Amino acid sequence: MKTIAVVLAGPRGRMGQEALRLIERTPNLQLVGAVDRVNGGKRIADIAGLPALDAPVYEDLAQCLQEVQADVLLDLTTPEIGKKHVHIAMQHGVRSVIGTTGFTEAELQDLTHTAKERGIGTIIAPNFAVGAVLMMKFAQMAAKYFQDVEVIELHHDQKLDAPSGTAMKTVDLIRTARTPKQQGHPNETETWTGARGANVDGIHVHSVRLPGLVAHQEVLFGGDGQMLTIRHDSFNRASFMSGVKLAIETVMQLDTLVYGLENIMD
Amino acid sequence: MKTIAVVLAGPRGRMGQEALRLIERTPNLQLVGAVDRVNGGKRIADIAGLPALDAPVYEDLAQCLQEVQADVLLDLTTPEIGKKHVHIAMQHGVRSVIGTTGFTEAELQDLTHTAKERGIGTIIAPNFAVGAVLMMKFAQMAAKYFQDVEVIELHHDQKLDAPSGTAMKTVDLIRTARTPKQQGHPNETETWTGARGANVDGIHVHSVRLPGLVAHQEVLFGGDGQMLTIRHDSFNRASFMSGVKLAIETVMQLDTLVYGLENIMD
Amino acid sequence: MKTIAVVLAGPRGRMGQEALRLIERTPNLQLVGAVDRVNGGKRIADIAGLPALDAPVYEDLAQCLQEVQADVLLDLTTPEIGKKHVHIAMQHGVRSVIGTTGFTEAELQDLTHTAKERGIGTIIAPNFAVGAVLMMKFAQMAAKYFQDVEVIELHHDQKLDAPSGTAMKTVDLIRTARTPKQQGHPNETETWTGARGANVDGIHVHSVRLPGLVAHQEVLFGGDGQMLTIRHDSFNRASFMSGVKLAIETVMQLDTLVYGLENIMD
Amino acid sequence: MKTIAVVLAGPRGRMGQEALRLIERTPNLQLVGAVDRVNGGKRIADIAGLPALDAPVYEDLAQCLQEVQADVLLDLTTPEIGKKHVHIAMQHGVRSVIGTTGFTEAELQDLTHTAKERGIGTIIAPNFAVGAVLMMKFAQMAAKYFQDVEVIELHHDQKLDAPSGTAMKTVDLIRTARTPKQQGHPNETETWTGARGANVDGIHVHSVRLPGLVAHQEVLFGGDGQMLTIRHDSFNRASFMSGVKLAIETVMQLDTLVYGLENIMD
Repeated sequence: MKTIAVVLAGPRGRMGQEALRLIERTPNLQLVGAVDRVNGGKRIADIAGLPALDAPVYEDLAQCLQEVQADVLLDLTTPEIGKKHVHIAMQHGVRSVIGTTGFTEAELQDLTHTAKERGIGTIIAPNFAVGAVLMMKFAQMAAKYFQDVEVIELHHDQKLDAPSGTAMKTVDLIRTARTPKQQGHPNETETWTGARGANVDGIHVHSVRLPGLVAHQEVLFGGDGQMLTIRHDSFNRASFMSGVKLAIETVMQLDTLVYGLENIMD
Repeated sequence: MKTIAVVLAGPRGRMGQEALRLIERTPNLQLVGAVDRVNGGKRIADIAGLPALDAPVYEDLAQCLQEVQADVLLDLTTPEIGKKHVHIAMQHGVRSVIGTTGFTEAELQDLTHTAKERGIGTIIAPNFAVGAVLMMKFAQMAAKYFQDVEVIELHHDQKLDAPSGTAMKTVDLIRTARTPKQQGHPNETETWTGARGANVDGIHVHSVRLPGLVAHQEVLFGGDGQMLTIRHDSFNRASFMSGVKLAIETVMQLDTLVYGLENIMD
Repeated sequence: MKTIAVVLAGPRGRMGQEALRLIERTPNLQLVGAVDRVNGGKRIADIAGLPALDAPVYEDLAQCLQEVQADVLLDLTTPEIGKKHVHIAMQHGVRSVIGTTGFTEAELQDLTHTAKERGIGTIIAPNFAVGAVLMMKFAQMAAKYFQDVEVIELHHDQKLDAPSGTAMKTVDLIRTARTPKQQGHPNETETWTGARGANVDGIHVHSVRLPGLVAHQEVLFGGDGQMLTIRHDSFNRASFMSGVKLAIETVMQLDTLVYGLENIMD
Repeated sequence: MKTIAVVLAGPRGRMGQEALRLIERTPNLQLVGAVDRVNGGKRIADIAGLPALDAPVYEDLAQCLQEVQADVLLDLTTPEIGKKHVHIAMQHGVRSVIGTTGFTEAELQDLTHTAKERGIGTIIAPNFAVGAVLMMKFAQMAAKYFQDVEVIELHHDQKLDAPSGTAMKTVDLIRTARTPKQQGHPNETETWTGARGANVDGIHVHSVRLPGLVAHQEVLFGGDGQMLTIRHDSFNRASFMSGVKLAIETVMQLDTLVYGLENIMD
């Protein structure tokens, strides 16, 4: 497989550090530059805690893309910076893999239009965990055959919001495929309030919070005499890296914009 | 092992029919009589749907115990009848295994006193599922070492109440052993109301209802970097029979009253 | 939805009895006849143990299809009889749903040809459990993204063969999608022989046998920092009925032969 | 609770670093000294990567115990060094918590004798994961009521041996409580060799190896119509720290030697 030259924006973040390790151990990926808010002029290997990769660090993406020969920009910064970077990459004719959320519908349409016009492959993915994306995809498919479904998501007890974003996205996808139904017995009652969880369009969602856990989710489908369960366990941040690799390799085949990892998986 | 002569009250109920099959296949158990609201004077084998056990059927327990030589009364009727039967058995010097709920504290004290006075072994057990009793016992033991615990119970979607009686009993037992704690992040919020389940003294309880399921429960303990899970699956009514057998065999060694299967298990 | 007139072959078998209950409770299905080896001339309701459906019983399928107006033959007999019945149904221009295994490749090609020629929809499905079929389909899809996979199947302890047919079918499907890999550490050793299970092309398969269980399977995919699990629990024979219903409704839209429930599900 | 003065041997090891963090965040634990093969004369805070705890570092335990006032030696070094340290601690009248394996029966008897004679509390624990110890304890208890049991352990794919030490210890404990039985159908056969796992005295053990996993184990008990599952998930090394804390607090109440965390848990 041909080597892909990557510029990484955000090398010191937690995702960025994992991405450096991914590039280091993947033969067909080569780091040709990095973009950091500080450290311009250094080499990656000079920055404390980062692996011994020999690539120049820039504080400005445009300057970086002028000076190095890049195939793909991998952006693991913030939504605000990511939005700017994708435009700059397009202007330089460089493909992008953007791992960030926060694009509005209008912004996505605009970017989709530009990508198509210039024929520049671009992938924007709010979730790079291949297993989590498959879990959601399978849940959506199964909902066509099982009307009765509940979601249990389990996270560490420092999480502030319930349910998780992944659980809400899963429910949204299920609703596109499921014939609406109010589940459970019509006369069911809660002896202890809240026991039946959140009820969204008849789908019940339960959030467990325990110290020690990381990020886990089960989607349970019940039917006559059977249960189908789809579960994803994320044990650490490395779980995102196979999705990053898949996106970088896939974007090289694209000449349009794709939103969501699920749309490059079949 | 010496054969134990059993009188069964309630042979046509769903538990009673399972008990007949249990007695039929257990070498050291022998059915010597049955007590039924109707069918007095028939043999068990004459009643449609029951196994070919050759024992007389009575409509009155006192008459039965006068005419047959019984070691143990196994009562699988209703709370109301069960209460009467245990007294009659004690009067006849016959040990009892009573599978019923609904005894008041005062009634239990009174029966305990009588059993002790007369030296008649008696077991009253609201739950005969050995696995469920162990799950509750283990949950209570683990709660001493893990403050953080959540309960997920899963039942078929025709169940009316949530959470299940077993879940509520489990939480009660955990509370006797656990140092109180309000679990989860102090500032956690529910984007979808009810997601965090019922909150009882800081312990969260979640009830899943799906067609196809029978009766299942998980108790999840979380700590630093680890999770301990205790799960019980009840697939059908036969799950009660090993507890019935254990109770019949144990009551032969007792000369007092014991309430709850957990108290004859160590 | 238009009512579908069904002839059921094999009404007294365990699957057949479940099918009668399915037809009884499904508004758009109507039983117009049954084919039994015995009981010709009776009505279904006359046969002990069967529900009160008023349909004539025949001992010969050809005679049945001449006398009643049928849309679909549902055959839940044996492979031998099923093979004959599908031919007879085709001759009478009646669609078939055949729940049997044992067709050779040549027989399937021949039937496919005939079905196409006459334009008669036909579904042959060795497994009607919708959840199990989805589990296999999802496992095949996930294997494209996860090379590392193990299968655990759990059945009651009266099962003679290990692994189960479903587990073997699952492994076959995974192999069509997975890049070959010898899993585990190259130098791994078994302190206790057999611990690592069966090894098929690098995929490890484990068979658990315990009393109380019914039929369960987990497919576990592992990757960097994550695990994806697809599990199916079959609690009782009713788990096949949603697949039977799906097949009957789908065959009405077909004018060719389809083999395998997975090929009518997307 | 009174503050406990701790000397830590092995501060730079992976367990040692976790222990430093434990001491740092636990109000009633105070680090008064550390023993390291190198770094003698430094302070803990001077050693790269360690937390900012202000305690002197020694290369010799005897010297350390002469100069600082210690309640407990926490030894997280190697079996060889741990054996020497426990003797030195006893000579100085200091209690020990030793997290190491490799003591022979004779060595344990000798240490037990010395500890009793001098009245010095000592805990030697090969496994500090409270949840894993409870899992084994519960499995042993359940085996008294369920003869049929299988063990599934799951680890990352870099593990060399199968089954894991914890799985083998679990089986040993189960065997002390279980009435022997050859499980499964007497005539069962393996279509794929190894599918039924390792067979130890009738108990089947299955080892799963997948990238992404850490250390997990399930003990499954099956009986009439039910299953009881006890599962432990170890997500990272921090899972040992609650056991270390429990041992330090408990050893202050002891004047004899206890081997195994399970024997200070009830």
